[in-house]
Amino acid sequence: MNQKQYQGYLIDLDGTLYRGIEVIPGAVHFMKRLVERNIPYLYLTNNSSRLPEQVAEHLRSFGLPATPEQVYTSAMATAQYVQKNHPGSKVLVIGEEGLRHALTEVGMTIIDRDYKKGHLQTFIEPDVVVAGIDRSFDYEKCKRASLAIQDGATYIATNVDRVLPTEEGYLPGSGTINIAISHASNTKPIVIGKPETIILQYAMEILNMKPDETLIVGDNLETDILTGVRGGVDTLMVTTGVHSRQDVETYNITPTFVVDHLDQWEI
Amino acid sequence: MNQKQYQGYLIDLDGTLYRGIEVIPGAVHFMKRLVERNIPYLYLTNNSSRLPEQVAEHLRSFGLPATPEQVYTSAMATAQYVQKNHPGSKVLVIGEEGLRHALTEVGMTIIDRDYKKGHLQTFIEPDVVVAGIDRSFDYEKCKRASLAIQDGATYIATNVDRVLPTEEGYLPGSGTINIAISHASNTKPIVIGKPETIILQYAMEILNMKPDETLIVGDNLETDILTGVRGGVDTLMVTTGVHSRQDVETYNITPTFVVDHLDQWEI
Repeated sequence: MNQKQYQGYLIDLDGTLYRGIEVIPGAVHFMKRLVERNIPYLYLTNNSSRLPEQVAEHLRSFGLPATPEQVYTSAMATAQYVQKNHPGSKVLVIGEEGLRHALTEVGMTIIDRDYKKGHLQTFIEPDVVVAGIDRSFDYEKCKRASLAIQDGATYIATNVDRVLPTEEGYLPGSGTINIAISHASNTKPIVIGKPETIILQYAMEILNMKPDETLIVGDNLETDILTGVRGGVDTLMVTTGVHSRQDVETYNITPTFVVDHLDQWEI
Repeated sequence: MNQKQYQGYLIDLDGTLYRGIEVIPGAVHFMKRLVERNIPYLYLTNNSSRLPEQVAEHLRSFGLPATPEQVYTSAMATAQYVQKNHPGSKVLVIGEEGLRHALTEVGMTIIDRDYKKGHLQTFIEPDVVVAGIDRSFDYEKCKRASLAIQDGATYIATNVDRVLPTEEGYLPGSGTINIAISHASNTKPIVIGKPETIILQYAMEILNMKPDETLIVGDNLETDILTGVRGGVDTLMVTTGVHSRQDVETYNITPTFVVDHLDQWEI
């Protein structure tokens, strides 16, 4: 099943290539076929907590072909957005290593580097507040972010995934942290990750691909597939993750193609 | 101005009797007139952080006549609700001293008494999760509350005031904490405080008053006045706090009476 030769692939991770600690059957073969045909691809993830090196290593542990350069996270897209639209900014970061590293890489000044529980050591007013998953999020961070936004700082969210699926259950995700900051500050964030299209635009620029040459591969209608719908990019849904063929009818979000296994897809 | 002799008064605090560290002109005289005429009253507040003794002392510091028995907080109403509907419950509390004390007073078992950063020392599944303002709220608390609610615990919010007005600015309120827990758990809480009417019903029971004998006095259309509208209790709005006469038209929430100063009200 395939109607078109796509020149670039943007591939989701969790639910598409692996689930928890298990690789999904067909995933390794799918990626090897892309490599054999020299088709450029990026692993596209909303996860902002890890460095691209860490994501690539995790993928390689499943036997999937991945270099850090083939990983594009919402943290990296957020950093690129800040660099482009707010060059030279002082940034208050609610986030983990992946986000802090990405912002530092593009030359931003992170003002809460010396953040200690209950206090910002250097009390500089930020130009931008960036918030993503942060497992050390607390009242003080919510308060600092909210006051800065109320004072006029631009508010950017890496992504708004409601929860993180883990072995412990559904834990609070970036969307939970951002709904708190958004509610306290009475301000909606600029959202970078899927299903928003900023991450998609940047990913296509990296691959040097146009929308009609690109295919998004993913398991989630509300993130992966909706990104394609909004960005005018074809989508391949695989039903090995959160959503089923039945959900396609319920959600009113229509993938270009649906397969039950990536082996069913001809590259 | 007065059309009726009310037999019981339910009186808001901040914006109605004082603003920050200043008593509002007319407030002391208003309360003294209630005392002179032997009209029963309760100070009715959504603040769940303090003990009734602390609230009464704070009021007395402004020259307002207040005993702990005349204070009714959303923490006390929440405790009463839990006692009535979930007797003998094990409760996970996201909250401060006032809420913990109120729940303990009515005989509930607080299971997170030994909560240490990152760990619940006693890992008992709660029957009920109660959440209010908690300035030591963090990711771990949000996660524990959300997992317990996903596992079937009843979810109760003391109140959902979006922000706390303070000298530092508008800080995250109970509503911000609760929107995070609610989002992560995908569950709406039972709300006890204003503008919900559970706190109102309990307050009238304490005064032994019927709705048509009671008057709610407050400055906030979205909390104080809406409580009265929903509960069928007359309201006196005073424009010394957050809302003005003009707001009455904007909000589509109509107080029974509006005065600019409590001195304009005949008791």
